[in-house]
Amino acid sequence: MSKGGWSGVMPDLDRESIVPLYRQIYEQLREAILTGTLPASTRLPSERSFAQRLAVTRSTVVRAYRELVVDGLIEQRVGAGSRVALRGRPAPAEHSAAIPWWVSLPSWRVGEYPMVLGELAAKHDLGRISFVQGIAPDEPSPLGELAKSFARVASDPRLVLSYGDSEGYGPLRDAIAARMRARGVKREAANTIVLTGSTQGIMIVAQSLAEPGDEIIVESPSYPGALQIFQICGLRAIAVPVDDDGMRVDHVEAVLRTRRPRFIYTMPSLHNPTNATMNADRRERLVTIAKRAGVPIVEDDPYGPLAPGDAPPLVALAPEHVVYLSTFSKTIAPGLRVGWLCAPRPILERLLLRKQAYDMATSLYAQAAVTDYLERAYDEHVMLLREELLLRRTLADRAIATYWPSSFRASKPVGGFYLWATTPREIRARSLLDAAERLGASFLFGGAFFAMPGGEHHLRLALTAVKRDEIAEGIRRIGEAIDALRS
Amino acid sequence: MSKGGWSGVMPDLDRESIVPLYRQIYEQLREAILTGTLPASTRLPSERSFAQRLAVTRSTVVRAYRELVVDGLIEQRVGAGSRVALRGRPAPAEHSAAIPWWVSLPSWRVGEYPMVLGELAAKHDLGRISFVQGIAPDEPSPLGELAKSFARVASDPRLVLSYGDSEGYGPLRDAIAARMRARGVKREAANTIVLTGSTQGIMIVAQSLAEPGDEIIVESPSYPGALQIFQICGLRAIAVPVDDDGMRVDHVEAVLRTRRPRFIYTMPSLHNPTNATMNADRRERLVTIAKRAGVPIVEDDPYGPLAPGDAPPLVALAPEHVVYLSTFSKTIAPGLRVGWLCAPRPILERLLLRKQAYDMATSLYAQAAVTDYLERAYDEHVMLLREELLLRRTLADRAIATYWPSSFRASKPVGGFYLWATTPREIRARSLLDAAERLGASFLFGGAFFAMPGGEHHLRLALTAVKRDEIAEGIRRIGEAIDALRS
Repeated sequence: MSKGGWSGVMPDLDRESIVPLYRQIYEQLREAILTGTLPASTRLPSERSFAQRLAVTRSTVVRAYRELVVDGLIEQRVGAGSRVALRGRPAPAEHSAAIPWWVSLPSWRVGEYPMVLGELAAKHDLGRISFVQGIAPDEPSPLGELAKSFARVASDPRLVLSYGDSEGYGPLRDAIAARMRARGVKREAANTIVLTGSTQGIMIVAQSLAEPGDEIIVESPSYPGALQIFQICGLRAIAVPVDDDGMRVDHVEAVLRTRRPRFIYTMPSLHNPTNATMNADRRERLVTIAKRAGVPIVEDDPYGPLAPGDAPPLVALAPEHVVYLSTFSKTIAPGLRVGWLCAPRPILERLLLRKQAYDMATSLYAQAAVTDYLERAYDEHVMLLREELLLRRTLADRAIATYWPSSFRASKPVGGFYLWATTPREIRARSLLDAAERLGASFLFGGAFFAMPGGEHHLRLALTAVKRDEIAEGIRRIGEAIDALRS
Repeated sequence: MSKGGWSGVMPDLDRESIVPLYRQIYEQLREAILTGTLPASTRLPSERSFAQRLAVTRSTVVRAYRELVVDGLIEQRVGAGSRVALRGRPAPAEHSAAIPWWVSLPSWRVGEYPMVLGELAAKHDLGRISFVQGIAPDEPSPLGELAKSFARVASDPRLVLSYGDSEGYGPLRDAIAARMRARGVKREAANTIVLTGSTQGIMIVAQSLAEPGDEIIVESPSYPGALQIFQICGLRAIAVPVDDDGMRVDHVEAVLRTRRPRFIYTMPSLHNPTNATMNADRRERLVTIAKRAGVPIVEDDPYGPLAPGDAPPLVALAPEHVVYLSTFSKTIAPGLRVGWLCAPRPILERLLLRKQAYDMATSLYAQAAVTDYLERAYDEHVMLLREELLLRRTLADRAIATYWPSSFRASKPVGGFYLWATTPREIRARSLLDAAERLGASFLFGGAFFAMPGGEHHLRLALTAVKRDEIAEGIRRIGEAIDALRS
């Protein structure tokens, strides 16, 4: 390099910036090369002389140049110094106007659950008794008290006309943490992030705790929304079975003997779709082996507060080893889009950064209304809701005993939203659904709930999705469909 | 392989499933190996004999085995067939209980904007005149009419007690599309997805249209929330300057000569932070060169409906070449968290899948209330808001002329939320902020708005974030801080 002038770009360095100096140099040279200010073949100053003129250490310039080499923007040869490369990359092929731009998009991980979430969020079919959606029953209704809560906060500009903190509305985080502590969980507001529904929490952990190609452990069957998210994120699900006592922890143990998955995703209380609640022995064991393996547990607990007895969640056993997700969608209303996560402090900021990127902050207005509702009406509503769920299951069991052949088995666990049934070998759930829809009833067939093939002999009935007095009639129609298939 | 029995796993194939048969075989063998059902060194049947027994083609088994080889789960040797590998992977090192699990998390792309979004969403400091947050002014207030809209929909269980469609509430999508058409944009409800704020749309395009490592074009300065999202997603931003007439399209052209970025991110109307609106010539040119290069434009338009004259957005010029994002956060209230995107139909499903993963669906309750508000109160509110913005800018210009030295320059374009000012060389914006905060006024310094180093001589004042009668006093306090720094 000439010791004399360098007529090219002289980076403007901000020595107070949090951006490292090497990166400031790199980025300004990069822009200059990309925009043509430094044309191809331009000789760059030697590292030493450039460092002198910029009043930085030589290693700072070395590092900046190295990044440019990696980008293919400059070339370095021993003895000949550094030059702007002939082109940064091969010149892009001329684009044909006839080809739409989306043809060359990056490949798309959709896999086998192309639109499952969409199906779950689907419309209620008119005239059909649809046991499809996992929504709370129409009675007991939270609407009256909820409208009052919204009206109370609607006039406060601080709650409607601002974004609020990304981690959530302070009084709501306090209220959530207090309720967690009442369930035996040592968590504070500082461990809590308010979410726009708990689905958001599943996406946050999928993108924050793992990378595409990583393995995770899931239950089989499991919540299809979660399976779809894991698939979109390129995670490889190792499926572990669920029985009436919850996840088969002995299978988890076998997997952990040879694999190191990024996390274990489980819904231990009122599991979707089987309604199973993991027993105390398995909970203890799962936490023990997960800790020993250094693999965190992601506990998805949308239904936990509705479990008969309200047993403590897994996170109570190991607050620092569990990322806990829950929501008010099942206990109050899905239209709120308010959920939360609890996590160890050291990873909270990482999780929060994703939450911010997904939607900046959850509606402060909705958060404030939920806070008000929690104080005034929530406990009574949940108590009535639990009773309603037990009553609905009783009605369903009675109708099944009347209208379905005994070769159909319904899952034992009660108390939640779902009834999980197994068909006899000769009847496939998908064919049964087709027949039932013709007779005016619908449900979800098992396939969507399995990370692996399976579920062809299972069906899920959301007993909450219909009016209480439609349960028996809906089950009767499915019974009629069974008869039609068998004859 | 012996022609006789294979005592190992016999995959259970579902021939009606959408899951390909090779994948069913692969996944069931994979689980069997991982859980130890097929122990290390177990010989697998030959591809031919296994295919016969499963009644599938040989190539189906070949493909399933190949996937298992890629996973390191089986080994194949010519002449010796296939065996379960000694271990699927090296046995995981025994985890030390003393090391917390988060120490081994995947690396975290945070870069230089660790918590910028958080700062933007920060609390209002009491007692300080804070020009920080990009929120709508307190007057004209939408609160009265908005409360009525919420009250109207609060009693309808279909709007509160269900999730609704992921793409959004039908009547709202219709209303949005009609308003887009009124602005000269040929878009239908079928091109529209309702978002939980337009930040969500930025994350959707960042994850749907590009992959980590890909290049994109951004404006410099630009919205820090977008820059942070692009960084989290591992995208490499090529920065192009903005002047009083908007993005320097000649720079875009220079970049496109040698690079093929995944998209061009621009805020062409009332740009944040400069308030610039791109002129008509540049709009035409940008669309022309982007089409020729086959690079889509992501138009972020939160402030567009407030622009004096309400000029048609970029998407009006090339509906099939632009992904358009906007929001009601600036025109009604950020607490709603309701925004939208418009995109060509062929990529809508891809974008929708991400939206679902981020939060399933935007609050149906909020969407229904916005729909009602749009019908009754929106147009008048926006008209008053435009007048208020012009008035505030007049007040600010007058105060600046009185209290700031003439070496400070304010950006020319008026009408939006922001005033972008340039300090003289001897005054750094960050030092000025420190001094101003001591005197009871705050703003954002320019650094956060640059994808590259820069901004040390810029500040952004959100004129909307304070009460109207505080504008002059806040600017006076900053003037006092300037005097303090100069003396």
